[in-house]
Amino acid sequence: MKVDGVPRRSIQLAADGETVEIVDQTGLPHRFETRRLATLEDAAAAIRDMRVRGAPLIGATAAYGLCFAVRRDPSAKAIEDACSTLLATRPTAVNLRWALGDMKTRILAVDEGRRVEAAYARAAEICDEDVAINAAIGENGLDLLSSMADRRPGPVDVLTHCNAGWLATVDGGTALAPVYRAHDAGIDVHVWVDETRPRNQGAGLTAWELAAHGVPHTVIVDNAGGHLMREGRVDLCITGTDRTCANGDVCNKIGTYLKALAASDNGVPFYVALPGPTIDWAAESGAVLPIEERAGEEVSTATGETETGEVRTVRLTPPGTPVFNPGFDVTPARLVTGLITERGVAEASAEGLLSLYPERRRAAAG
Amino acid sequence: MKVDGVPRRSIQLAADGETVEIVDQTGLPHRFETRRLATLEDAAAAIRDMRVRGAPLIGATAAYGLCFAVRRDPSAKAIEDACSTLLATRPTAVNLRWALGDMKTRILAVDEGRRVEAAYARAAEICDEDVAINAAIGENGLDLLSSMADRRPGPVDVLTHCNAGWLATVDGGTALAPVYRAHDAGIDVHVWVDETRPRNQGAGLTAWELAAHGVPHTVIVDNAGGHLMREGRVDLCITGTDRTCANGDVCNKIGTYLKALAASDNGVPFYVALPGPTIDWAAESGAVLPIEERAGEEVSTATGETETGEVRTVRLTPPGTPVFNPGFDVTPARLVTGLITERGVAEASAEGLLSLYPERRRAAAG
Repeated sequence: MKVDGVPRRSIQLAADGETVEIVDQTGLPHRFETRRLATLEDAAAAIRDMRVRGAPLIGATAAYGLCFAVRRDPSAKAIEDACSTLLATRPTAVNLRWALGDMKTRILAVDEGRRVEAAYARAAEICDEDVAINAAIGENGLDLLSSMADRRPGPVDVLTHCNAGWLATVDGGTALAPVYRAHDAGIDVHVWVDETRPRNQGAGLTAWELAAHGVPHTVIVDNAGGHLMREGRVDLCITGTDRTCANGDVCNKIGTYLKALAASDNGVPFYVALPGPTIDWAAESGAVLPIEERAGEEVSTATGETETGEVRTVRLTPPGTPVFNPGFDVTPARLVTGLITERGVAEASAEGLLSLYPERRRAAAG
Repeated sequence: MKVDGVPRRSIQLAADGETVEIVDQTGLPHRFETRRLATLEDAAAAIRDMRVRGAPLIGATAAYGLCFAVRRDPSAKAIEDACSTLLATRPTAVNLRWALGDMKTRILAVDEGRRVEAAYARAAEICDEDVAINAAIGENGLDLLSSMADRRPGPVDVLTHCNAGWLATVDGGTALAPVYRAHDAGIDVHVWVDETRPRNQGAGLTAWELAAHGVPHTVIVDNAGGHLMREGRVDLCITGTDRTCANGDVCNKIGTYLKALAASDNGVPFYVALPGPTIDWAAESGAVLPIEERAGEEVSTATGETETGEVRTVRLTPPGTPVFNPGFDVTPARLVTGLITERGVAEASAEGLLSLYPERRRAAAG
């Protein structure tokens, strides 16, 4: 997508063909800074310190981290060590594990003299595959928005939660892919952005990237979406997801469930956009998913910029107040109007998902 | 209620019998400070600067402001001027208008020489009436909590939104009145406190007053309540209300509607506590209520204490981000299990309300 009119990916190979440039997301929305990664250690630190975030982007950064390691030492032992270093940065990230395993297989399949070339080629492919998936999600979601646009004058009002935009991917985003696609096609789109406490990825990242690309948007507190839907001011909701279960239940950022309830109560379509690889075919329903409990400081504090331009963290509660911070919730499939994937839009059900991924039907039967 | 074991009202007559002491709510939860009000100007400033807040407390503060004015000059002209000054502080506050009208009638009914005495007597009555109403709400809500406590071991988990505690009233609170009553009766009660963005009255005021009185509680972001209800960790919800319509629709702090939806979806009882005087018998339903739109800065910023102990405001969004800030939403009566009033618990319906306030049935018929 664009920043100040210039096309940019959240991670991109530098002109030297060896190092990569990332958008340092820890500074957003207050500082837009890029960083050059040149070594395995740079890549590991960028993931660990959350300068990059979002499953696809973490995987892509790890892939390039492995490229840097192979350039230094193409031996199997060095590659194994580099994988361990990168895996340890975010041990629970499924995409990270997948990207490293895939890279390793491709690299070890060729002679040491050709491993650097093989590594860079596969890392580029991993990035391009993510971009292609998101472009297809955007294309498949475009019809939903354009049919809304045809119904009445004025902008199509989309409500989204958290950040499932291009900053969470290599480029294009998932939930925001249809929004960018529609905007670029000249459709008048406006986005209601949930601020998304406790980490404020909506108020910070989503608002920033929509502004950078020029998409009209308005930030609201997480409490306000239900009221807007009652007032008829939301045409449809689109969120991302961390994990979709085989029955269509959706695990996503805490608070998604409340918006899905409000959408259902007001007849507002509620869509979830997802790359096929994030479907967890082994999870029968949301009931089996563990919900990560995160640090209490995220709830008791907020971080932002003071009038004098310093980024500070302030405590909102009395000192020592007990807090509880579940990171995700499960939205049952019955509240989800449809799943927007790279292969098309499906009903949120086992049958709906299998209709798009028939190869899984054979797996399920076998 | 108690602060550090000492009983205290949010407004109370000082030992001199002339001035009053308030809790300065602008400092909470970071600074607990009281202020002495001695003049009409003191009282007007306390209301205008929101050192006192909550309809009953604003009314009580205005009543004492009129006492101070009468002490200075008991003429009808001076009383009229003082009423104008006080009314201008929060022009839309219904309770303020009512308290001033009532005070003026009582004061002007007696000779100038007895007006100071009449004013102080009526101001004290206004305060005591609020305390009595809240005590009755607490008593009427006690059964709900004690029957929950009997069902299973462990604490009764109550979820509340915003601050409808003793800081919003003269004493006792509305939504929290049953909680305090149960806690004082030895029932094991625990409160999930929604932080209540954008103004964080939950994270600030509710958490502070529950801690001061010693009631166990946990602060959560507004996004988390639905997940807790799905997990069976909420026994009932109790919120306050700014205005209850004749059909049982409830207007309350933005976000209340989303919690009522989650309660309904999970079979969790959702109660609203209210003093009878806040029922708007002229409002047939929530559809007719105007929703106040508040300043955008409330959404784009958060205020709290830094590590070094300064209270600072930080901006959460990119500079210039458009924001929208509706202050209230309407929860339809169908989502409300019951209304807890000073006269008992009623179904949230026209018939339910009229059963408790039969004098309104005659008015409606006439």
